[in-house]
Amino acid sequence: MQIQLFITGGTLDKVYNPLTGELVFDQTSIPAMLARGRCTLDIAVETLSLKDSLDMHDQDRTNILQRCQSCPATHIIITHGTDTMAATAEVLGKHISSKTIVLSGAMIPYTVSHSDALFNLGCAVTGVQLLPTGVYIAMNGQIFSWENVMKNRDAGIFQQHATNSVY
Amino acid sequence: MQIQLFITGGTLDKVYNPLTGELVFDQTSIPAMLARGRCTLDIAVETLSLKDSLDMHDQDRTNILQRCQSCPATHIIITHGTDTMAATAEVLGKHISSKTIVLSGAMIPYTVSHSDALFNLGCAVTGVQLLPTGVYIAMNGQIFSWENVMKNRDAGIFQQHATNSVY
Amino acid sequence: MQIQLFITGGTLDKVYNPLTGELVFDQTSIPAMLARGRCTLDIAVETLSLKDSLDMHDQDRTNILQRCQSCPATHIIITHGTDTMAATAEVLGKHISSKTIVLSGAMIPYTVSHSDALFNLGCAVTGVQLLPTGVYIAMNGQIFSWENVMKNRDAGIFQQHATNSVY
Amino acid sequence: MQIQLFITGGTLDKVYNPLTGELVFDQTSIPAMLARGRCTLDIAVETLSLKDSLDMHDQDRTNILQRCQSCPATHIIITHGTDTMAATAEVLGKHISSKTIVLSGAMIPYTVSHSDALFNLGCAVTGVQLLPTGVYIAMNGQIFSWENVMKNRDAGIFQQHATNSVY
Repeated sequence: MQIQLFITGGTLDKVYNPLTGELVFDQTSIPAMLARGRCTLDIAVETLSLKDSLDMHDQDRTNILQRCQSCPATHIIITHGTDTMAATAEVLGKHISSKTIVLSGAMIPYTVSHSDALFNLGCAVTGVQLLPTGVYIAMNGQIFSWENVMKNRDAGIFQQHATNSVY
Repeated sequence: MQIQLFITGGTLDKVYNPLTGELVFDQTSIPAMLARGRCTLDIAVETLSLKDSLDMHDQDRTNILQRCQSCPATHIIITHGTDTMAATAEVLGKHISSKTIVLSGAMIPYTVSHSDALFNLGCAVTGVQLLPTGVYIAMNGQIFSWENVMKNRDAGIFQQHATNSVY
Repeated sequence: MQIQLFITGGTLDKVYNPLTGELVFDQTSIPAMLARGRCTLDIAVETLSLKDSLDMHDQDRTNILQRCQSCPATHIIITHGTDTMAATAEVLGKHISSKTIVLSGAMIPYTVSHSDALFNLGCAVTGVQLLPTGVYIAMNGQIFSWENVMKNRDAGIFQQHATNSVY
Repeated sequence: MQIQLFITGGTLDKVYNPLTGELVFDQTSIPAMLARGRCTLDIAVETLSLKDSLDMHDQDRTNILQRCQSCPATHIIITHGTDTMAATAEVLGKHISSKTIVLSGAMIPYTVSHSDALFNLGCAVTGVQLLPTGVYIAMNGQIFSWENVMKNRDAGIFQQHATNSVY
């Protein structure tokens, strides 16, 4: 199985700039993370952007969509910032039904202690192989369909939309 | 979904003893790893043993088998040393067909730099939710059925048994 | 030898807040760092503040000065942000001549990969024992007198003031 | 000040071999550690050996002695295994009185979590600049003269020889 991994940026790939004291983008850590995971799968890695997902706009999502549609792979992982991951998943979910696409990222950068990035990458790599066609978010050990997922910013987790409990 | 995680030891859980200079077992890192992964799943964790898998014998495997059979959970993760992981998987695979069981571990201890442990745990947590009933090994980003998996010790990876190309 | 260590904050003690994506102050890492260094010295640790040194003003420096003067210890380490470390050293140097005071910090937080914090703490702990009375900055493996030190922000290092070549 | 750093091996430089599960020597981490410490000193680094100090014999110590005597630097750091660090210090102390030599190492390898190696290197780098001529061990934040130091193996620390309490 050929897997395509598109990097778009997000917290996962932020690094500390000692001169400015800020977390910024420099080089992606994804290839190093796959090597650390001793991952033996055939994964093609390509960086589409290195952006905070709050800085991603319609044009960015259109570009991601087009790349997912045009690439030969039918199994695609996308690393993405968490703040608008659900929005990008929705764009992809509404337009692609014949591929398995898993979005993932991290709440703590890979280069910061106690990062969840490597755990989430393991989840994404496994999910993309096992899930049926569709668009998903793999975070916190859970897998969500694009149709029912939101980031709970207060808790720092992803969850399903609250069920409207009537009566 | 209630998931049961049984810890048996293995490289994943080895820690350095500064007084002896040896890698030994002390306390498992699994709960800390699940917390680091910000895992929101309902996972019951229990330590069955903390052993090098080369020190595991028939009685150990029988005990693991009985615990897998008797526990109420139908989705089970087992952390295990890599050297005899395939042997334990075989024992489980021959006797259990109604549960989904995923064995995993690490080639480098969680407490050693560049460990693959957190990646593999993400793979196991995801695999156990998505795989059909059966017994599997999740290592190196790949998922193997117990019926066709071996550790390639020279390469330090898991792989399928070589197909006997006849003719 | 009784050593007093005053924590004031700075980059060294910043931690990542996964909910806001910012580097903030929460709890100091200094006791954990001394434990990791297996430090057997008798060091009294007290947190005076947890501040970015750009947020430190005259009142903060006066407070640090008074605490250095009034504490019984004659050997004092101060952790401090790098941006105004030299300014605080100057205040101390102009008023205290009977104690050995070493300021140190980090260019990269202790909780970020490739942090220099533990190295610098080793430098400070050693310097405070060996230096004659006076006020010093220990950074990058070098020891500077408060009378001739500045942070080179472009290079991210501490250095002596450039010698005035030919007025 | 030109500083010579001789690497001899020891726990500090051990790395995990995932194929054998053992801690072995491969490449020294010292240059990476100095870079991480953002060390701006002029330090010449040379590997004399990569050995467990229990495997060092008279010939090894004679070699270290000769290299310390013949090198142009008057300030020398030696990284060394802890088990026989005091023995090597004694050989050097008995024969060299015109140079400042600081031996250091680690109780936990640099590549293992919670390693004290970077802290100790900061101590050594600072000590070698400030100490008078003589031979010293810098460990655990303390500086010991070669004439009165021993490793307490039960506690995993260095200390002075017990004072003979004359009943």
